[in-house]
Amino acid sequence: MKSPRITIIATGSEITAGRSIDTNSGWIAQQLFEEGWKVRNFIALPDDPKIILEELKHLKDSVAKDPHTPVLVIMTGGLGSTEDDYSLQCVLELQNKEREVSEKARIKLERLFASRGKSYEEILPTMLRQVYVPEGAKVLDNSAGIAVGFMEEIGNSSYLICMPGVPSEMKEMFSRKLLPILKRTYAPEDLFQETRWIWSIGESMFQEQFMKGQKDLLDAGMEWGVTAQKGYIKAIFQSTNKSLLDEVVKRIESFYGEACSFDVFEEVHRVLIEKQKTVSVAESCTGGLLGKRLTDLPGSSAYFVGGVLTYSNLQKEKSLGVSHSTLEQFGAVSEETCLEMVNGLEKLTDSDCSLSITGIAGPDGGSESKPVGTVWIGVKRKGSSASAHLYRFPGNRETIRENAANTAIYLLHQLLKSN
Amino acid sequence: MKSPRITIIATGSEITAGRSIDTNSGWIAQQLFEEGWKVRNFIALPDDPKIILEELKHLKDSVAKDPHTPVLVIMTGGLGSTEDDYSLQCVLELQNKEREVSEKARIKLERLFASRGKSYEEILPTMLRQVYVPEGAKVLDNSAGIAVGFMEEIGNSSYLICMPGVPSEMKEMFSRKLLPILKRTYAPEDLFQETRWIWSIGESMFQEQFMKGQKDLLDAGMEWGVTAQKGYIKAIFQSTNKSLLDEVVKRIESFYGEACSFDVFEEVHRVLIEKQKTVSVAESCTGGLLGKRLTDLPGSSAYFVGGVLTYSNLQKEKSLGVSHSTLEQFGAVSEETCLEMVNGLEKLTDSDCSLSITGIAGPDGGSESKPVGTVWIGVKRKGSSASAHLYRFPGNRETIRENAANTAIYLLHQLLKSN
Repeated sequence: MKSPRITIIATGSEITAGRSIDTNSGWIAQQLFEEGWKVRNFIALPDDPKIILEELKHLKDSVAKDPHTPVLVIMTGGLGSTEDDYSLQCVLELQNKEREVSEKARIKLERLFASRGKSYEEILPTMLRQVYVPEGAKVLDNSAGIAVGFMEEIGNSSYLICMPGVPSEMKEMFSRKLLPILKRTYAPEDLFQETRWIWSIGESMFQEQFMKGQKDLLDAGMEWGVTAQKGYIKAIFQSTNKSLLDEVVKRIESFYGEACSFDVFEEVHRVLIEKQKTVSVAESCTGGLLGKRLTDLPGSSAYFVGGVLTYSNLQKEKSLGVSHSTLEQFGAVSEETCLEMVNGLEKLTDSDCSLSITGIAGPDGGSESKPVGTVWIGVKRKGSSASAHLYRFPGNRETIRENAANTAIYLLHQLLKSN
Repeated sequence: MKSPRITIIATGSEITAGRSIDTNSGWIAQQLFEEGWKVRNFIALPDDPKIILEELKHLKDSVAKDPHTPVLVIMTGGLGSTEDDYSLQCVLELQNKEREVSEKARIKLERLFASRGKSYEEILPTMLRQVYVPEGAKVLDNSAGIAVGFMEEIGNSSYLICMPGVPSEMKEMFSRKLLPILKRTYAPEDLFQETRWIWSIGESMFQEQFMKGQKDLLDAGMEWGVTAQKGYIKAIFQSTNKSLLDEVVKRIESFYGEACSFDVFEEVHRVLIEKQKTVSVAESCTGGLLGKRLTDLPGSSAYFVGGVLTYSNLQKEKSLGVSHSTLEQFGAVSEETCLEMVNGLEKLTDSDCSLSITGIAGPDGGSESKPVGTVWIGVKRKGSSASAHLYRFPGNRETIRENAANTAIYLLHQLLKSN
């Protein structure tokens, strides 16, 4: 079976007004991607039956125009019990059908009401609406809530699927009910995937330096994508031919060496716990962002001791013992200050690993010799001497600070690897 | 001018593959809402020029079909320097145009290269592509990056706008360059707006408690929206009739009293600078997030001294002088520890305002008497005695930490107001 042309629709005026973010579509796309299917597009629509119906008609028409490409439309939301839930009504109009009750869902609703000491007759009409589907539709049971989902044929091997918008109900319904049906309907090929992070490099440089040399693999059927992050890029490779991925991984690792890593946030977390090492931070321009990032994952209290935020020079002297003359002679953003910060931090916290950051996040405070974006990062392992690393990060204040915090975690990752 | 029919497009295979969530579209919709415009739909497309072009053609056709309704298409992403950036190419094909260089952007790129000791000739062709726009297009300068945006006419009062997908660049471009043009182009009727933040309350509670009583104002032509934030909600009221807004503001302020505020992040920043006061922080469960947030705005070095991250109990004793017996008797998450933290912090930093946070961010570490989400926040003004405030924040680890940091800034705001 040819892979379907997939559209994911999220309905909800709270989404198109920007009050709430649609996370359902991305989640569904991820599940489909893992099965080897690519999504053609996402659409978000307000709770407006005219707009929803217009969009569904346009999609159904596209099936009629090209009957050899199966189309799969997965829509979430609009199946609830409030006045602004229009999905069923739109599908009935689209398919020119009447609705019918799902007996299983009706009984479930009846039992729910009985358990609250109420009779079926007391169920509000809007509440009751949730147990209806278009006549003859394939019903998708909702094991986490009331509103049932359904699957309607809209052409040759083409389907429109409606599921509730509540993430927990939708996810359950998708994984348990829908995915097995989709797998039977559109049996996919096997798809493999590899991801690597490359540090201190931009997308275009990566393309120029590395991807240009991968034409043979791309021609042989490897796909790739790259996402720019702060301080690094994330390169993703996919293929149905695993040997192509093995080859690209070999090449990228040999090309970038130490600058090529897996997810360092996860690795640092795992290794610190495994090796029972502690870490502390002394932050100036990042103002706490590094500590925040090191404590993002639950369980970080196993290794994160704490540290100091020495935003002012006086605080650098008082908390870390940076000498007044160093600050006067070399400035707060200097190799000397950065080293004294990390050494002072170790004295204060007695951690296995110590990190210091001092830099100019801007927009003011830059000079010719130390432009905005200049950041020194110090690292020290107990028992070894400290080292300081100079960076010139691009971007605005926010970007520079994120670059600095992420890069400090990368340096910690390198320190732990060499341990 | 009739309000435009607005479509927001996000391009990026990372979005339609579910690897990354599109936050740009929601942000843009919110900004447009504040100007009184509603968005018709969002579309997310992969980095596939065929699919992008097909969608743009469909939208341009819709302008031709109904020339009396202006159409506004705002597209983000695909303007970067990698091979999978296709926006410019698609627009050129759609409009049947050649590209032309934006001289201003070219000079900026040249200077950037010169500052890295490289000549213009060394600029990669893909990098260079970012300074091109369709011939005759209105250029939208990028003050936070390289890739320029642009605006193309696609029909009667109808425009297609392309902006970079990097949020910081897009936001800057939207606010400074695009919005003023849109306001001139689609001058909305005089629309007045009031925004208030309400602390420690959820959306549904707000609707139940307050909005139900505003039927008279809603019927008279007031619109409203609410965005759930971490620790507070942002309520926005709009009307062409200013007296309705004056009335709702009077009611909301009298209903919520101190829990009703303006943007506290901006106010705290402004007031600290005005009053020449300093602030420092002692953070446990937030791990640096509060310090990070207090240094988000440029110029924060005028007031932010720094502080300590005392994630471990030992560090609370060593850095802040919290007594061992307090920690033993009452625990790290207690009123007593919170007060000793903020008192110790003031001794350490001698700041005018001191803030401390200690809590259980989860998912582990909760108990019956101190469930996950329990957070104590301490505040102290120099010369007054410290106070500690207990919260039970809902949500997961990330939400609890953000709730705690934001609420601490709210408490600082209250402290400064009473000064």
